Amino acid sequence: MTTQKLIAEALGTGFLLIGVVGSGIMAETLSGGNIGLALLANAVATGAMLYVIITTLGPISGAHFNPAVTLAFALRGDHSWAAVPPYVAAQIIGGILGVWASHVMFDLTILQTSTTMHRTGGAQWFSEILATFGLLFVIFGGLRSRPEAVPALVAFYITGAYWFTASTSFANPAVTVARGFSDTFAGIYPGHILMFIVMQFIGVGLAHLILPRLFRPS
Amino acid sequence: MTTQKLIAEALGTGFLLIGVVGSGIMAETLSGGNIGLALLANAVATGAMLYVIITTLGPISGAHFNPAVTLAFALRGDHSWAAVPPYVAAQIIGGILGVWASHVMFDLTILQTSTTMHRTGGAQWFSEILATFGLLFVIFGGLRSRPEAVPALVAFYITGAYWFTASTSFANPAVTVARGFSDTFAGIYPGHILMFIVMQFIGVGLAHLILPRLFRPS
Amino acid sequence: MTTQKLIAEALGTGFLLIGVVGSGIMAETLSGGNIGLALLANAVATGAMLYVIITTLGPISGAHFNPAVTLAFALRGDHSWAAVPPYVAAQIIGGILGVWASHVMFDLTILQTSTTMHRTGGAQWFSEILATFGLLFVIFGGLRSRPEAVPALVAFYITGAYWFTASTSFANPAVTVARGFSDTFAGIYPGHILMFIVMQFIGVGLAHLILPRLFRPS
Amino acid sequence: MTTQKLIAEALGTGFLLIGVVGSGIMAETLSGGNIGLALLANAVATGAMLYVIITTLGPISGAHFNPAVTLAFALRGDHSWAAVPPYVAAQIIGGILGVWASHVMFDLTILQTSTTMHRTGGAQWFSEILATFGLLFVIFGGLRSRPEAVPALVAFYITGAYWFTASTSFANPAVTVARGFSDTFAGIYPGHILMFIVMQFIGVGLAHLILPRLFRPS
Repeated sequence: MTTQKLIAEALGTGFLLIGVVGSGIMAETLSGGNIGLALLANAVATGAMLYVIITTLGPISGAHFNPAVTLAFALRGDHSWAAVPPYVAAQIIGGILGVWASHVMFDLTILQTSTTMHRTGGAQWFSEILATFGLLFVIFGGLRSRPEAVPALVAFYITGAYWFTASTSFANPAVTVARGFSDTFAGIYPGHILMFIVMQFIGVGLAHLILPRLFRPS
Repeated sequence: MTTQKLIAEALGTGFLLIGVVGSGIMAETLSGGNIGLALLANAVATGAMLYVIITTLGPISGAHFNPAVTLAFALRGDHSWAAVPPYVAAQIIGGILGVWASHVMFDLTILQTSTTMHRTGGAQWFSEILATFGLLFVIFGGLRSRPEAVPALVAFYITGAYWFTASTSFANPAVTVARGFSDTFAGIYPGHILMFIVMQFIGVGLAHLILPRLFRPS
Repeated sequence: MTTQKLIAEALGTGFLLIGVVGSGIMAETLSGGNIGLALLANAVATGAMLYVIITTLGPISGAHFNPAVTLAFALRGDHSWAAVPPYVAAQIIGGILGVWASHVMFDLTILQTSTTMHRTGGAQWFSEILATFGLLFVIFGGLRSRPEAVPALVAFYITGAYWFTASTSFANPAVTVARGFSDTFAGIYPGHILMFIVMQFIGVGLAHLILPRLFRPS
Repeated sequence: MTTQKLIAEALGTGFLLIGVVGSGIMAETLSGGNIGLALLANAVATGAMLYVIITTLGPISGAHFNPAVTLAFALRGDHSWAAVPPYVAAQIIGGILGVWASHVMFDLTILQTSTTMHRTGGAQWFSEILATFGLLFVIFGGLRSRPEAVPALVAFYITGAYWFTASTSFANPAVTVARGFSDTFAGIYPGHILMFIVMQFIGVGLAHLILPRLFRPS
């Protein structure tokens, strides 16, 4: 593992959070109180960013930008366990820096803590299990059937999942932690972060049980 | 035919219904009464899901997720007749489970019956004939001209057809049955399901008559 | 030239008008008076349909669906002059049938004449010249640089051109004639059709003068 | 360097400004005062135009349409320094002509000067640094990982960046100058142009320092 890979993971996760948090701020500001319109812009911008960062950084670091993805690759034997902690650290640090860069761009206080209180409860938690399982289904299914389509697959999946999961599909512990640092459209109250991450790891576990059978060579 | 194929059909149809019903619930909730905005989000999320499940599961089961498509492949001689009933059963079971998963995600009563009453009458029925014919036109035309584009073709076709057909293009008997189980944005009153399915099969028949001549080798 | 090609041109242009007129009706009905939202749905649905019909029918008829495109190909020497009139006839007949099918789907009187009066005047006419020139720029530039991208190029160009030209880019005499038969969102008053078509042919002439120099082998 | 290349740069930048300014006028007119909806249409139309012009003109001139990109290529040694001034001149002239063509299409006074006053201040400036750095990250990363995807990468990046940067990502000195000539949705007060361009060049400098290390062969 090289420093180049860690910089790619940090930079990519930073860009991802700019995509999520920056577009969330702009969308909420401009949508005149229509949350549906704001979420549509937020989803399109996030999907666009995902396509860009996975295409450009995939050949360098694998373009995980997500501790759940790094863990799932390690469980498959495609990523060394020793490389998991530095990857996760780079993702979290990059994500938080991305949130702060968004705050600077929109002239907001840099250091914030979210007060968004509705991201909790059984329905939200079930959504995160399903969202994370689905993300890994998309990645590992795409790697099996058409690897060059993975950037588009992840981008379309998440753009859709903003709408078809009740939690808008965080599906990413680094993104979840980083969004705790923003009291804007994309924020999550820090006290609700832990359960989101637990659910995301349950999604990883389910994917590890089910996907190898589904995507085995026929 | 292997169990792997049936699981792929059930899982894919389940994801499809999550895409349709889940995003419909979210869209209606957030759009502040603007049905046009809700349908736009619903259409984008459904198209995104279709691209994802057809790309990932195509090499496993053929990615039908639709009894009309399975029947049309059997009529062409590309799918064994013996494999039609288990495919259809997997699609219907998967679809209903997808609806129920959506209800859990959005904290709704799991078991529901739709009370949406406007999906009936000649204009709606004609829409379903045309929508199903168009879907098969897209699939068989794409398989002839550019097979690797079929996931994008189906995704774009359905995203558009939410708008250019009056019925929003169910075009799928398993999806029609499953949507009867949801009293939300995407629902259809159970008493109106049968005629939708009859029309979809008329669309299959028309496609079987016309498309082999149109898409014959030149 | 075979009957297969003419059926492909008629069917494709029919689908195109369903995409334009059908989605226009749905969009105007559901958008609660917000024309911007209606045009966004209309543009997305039209682009989706263009991608689908050009990909599937391109290998059969060339997927013109547009007398301006057929004429431009003839001027380049890529389409026989004898095949121009039957192509144009198939496009116009198919287009009108597509409009009528849209009216049936939305339970409207089949035979209509548009009363939309604002599609006239110098600004609209200049828009049509530029829109048609741009369409041919996209087609011939795409055929030179990346032929397999032409369906996506035309689809994205028209989706954008709904917004960046004042006329929403008819850019197609068959589409213009057919839209005269619909007193809905996409309609054009029949008395204004001729000048639109004149402008579209001026666009063809400009393209014929300029594009061969721009896209000559370097 | 041939005249063909300069015409391609002028024409492409002209189309780009039609995409930006024309769709901005249409979007503001039709969105009923909802700026979020207007920006969504503006972003979609701009992205669509970028995909089209980069795909068609890339093989001719490299499809820069942007002095910051031309400069960055020169710094990498991929574009001769002697060819920088004519490229930049073609981009600026083409861009202004594109703005004027948009005004003609929408029946506005051709010669205008923007009175849009909010595109200034530290937050906007930081946005332009980040937007330009990101654009070059996308271009050079894409050229390394998947050159045929660069048109889609730039299109998706800018569509997203309308939302995730506070300045809506001008990221282009020629576009910035040209937008000063339009007192419409996309305009920028001429007195604020210089600082935007300074920031864009800082973005070029940062990219020149960082990207060669990130995208070096592994």
